[in-house]
Amino acid sequence: MKFCSKCGAAVERRIPEGEDRERWVCSACATIHYENPRMVVGCIVEQGGHILLCKRAIEPRHGYWTVPAGFLEIGESAVQGAVRETYEEAGARVQVIAPYAHFDIPHIGQAYIFYRARMLAPEISAGTESLEVKWAEPADIPWAELAFPVVRIALELHTQEAKTSSYHMHTGILARDEASRYVLREHLALPLFHA
Amino acid sequence: MKFCSKCGAAVERRIPEGEDRERWVCSACATIHYENPRMVVGCIVEQGGHILLCKRAIEPRHGYWTVPAGFLEIGESAVQGAVRETYEEAGARVQVIAPYAHFDIPHIGQAYIFYRARMLAPEISAGTESLEVKWAEPADIPWAELAFPVVRIALELHTQEAKTSSYHMHTGILARDEASRYVLREHLALPLFHA
Repeated sequence: MKFCSKCGAAVERRIPEGEDRERWVCSACATIHYENPRMVVGCIVEQGGHILLCKRAIEPRHGYWTVPAGFLEIGESAVQGAVRETYEEAGARVQVIAPYAHFDIPHIGQAYIFYRARMLAPEISAGTESLEVKWAEPADIPWAELAFPVVRIALELHTQEAKTSSYHMHTGILARDEASRYVLREHLALPLFHA
Repeated sequence: MKFCSKCGAAVERRIPEGEDRERWVCSACATIHYENPRMVVGCIVEQGGHILLCKRAIEPRHGYWTVPAGFLEIGESAVQGAVRETYEEAGARVQVIAPYAHFDIPHIGQAYIFYRARMLAPEISAGTESLEVKWAEPADIPWAELAFPVVRIALELHTQEAKTSSYHMHTGILARDEASRYVLREHLALPLFHA
């Protein structure tokens, strides 16, 4: 950030009066430009022991696999955003069953929110942001070709829990361990029941 | 938004190539300025049948009561943000027990995320953003003087569930009904267990 989006003057990095941390502040009109984490919302769509995967047609991670997910937009709820992304990326009409995970990635200012979902109609098809969509059993999930560590961690938990249908609501932080591998910290897993 | 924060030129409202909705786009450098919902994180702190309330010393809603909550910052998790806000506004050191609610308010681009929490030390004190802090039993909650509808709805659900200690994870959308009163839509309440 270099310029004030309100008046066009240069911004500077300083601690505004009454606050405790540096912000971008306009040198002319004094507007404070807050930067906040963004939510990425997505669905783990379940059907007969399979889950729905998309092969990415866009960067980052072109050609790698993920669950349908994307940035939440102004004007929609997190559930609505997850359902929209699932339709856009996988051509799938779904209904959310339950929240599944809220994983923060603080160093990049993102919060991933995953829901478990079921199909409302049988069709799936690759959207413009996907090269391919498919149903995968746990044994067929391409673990080495998943696009993002946060997706790997969510699917590791989900496939484990799917064995006994004992799903939890997961809360945690993604951070790198000593070997630079992403792991889940401050993990809180609470049993969540649904009809 | 009037100017590009990257180059200072004027921005215009248009649909970028490959997208499906209008964004602010720079007329000179073509940078797309995405706007996304912001997360407000807070704690419903429980102690012996009471919950912790703060009387706001700042606008909006100066003088009205709320639970400790505020905007999530880059570099922290939602849980960490809720714990930080509780210390800043109520001087209370808390530990999160469980997620309690994720309520979206789409028309203002906000997502409220509340956690149930317990005290780690007995002290409470009004921070700079609070006029007063207090413990309230359900019967003593100043319902007519709560700062925000989202707080009223969360506390209505919580006080009801506290009677039997049968807490749920709540998901929903805040919207106005025909009488212009805020109500919860698409409400999903799933029983959440903890030790």
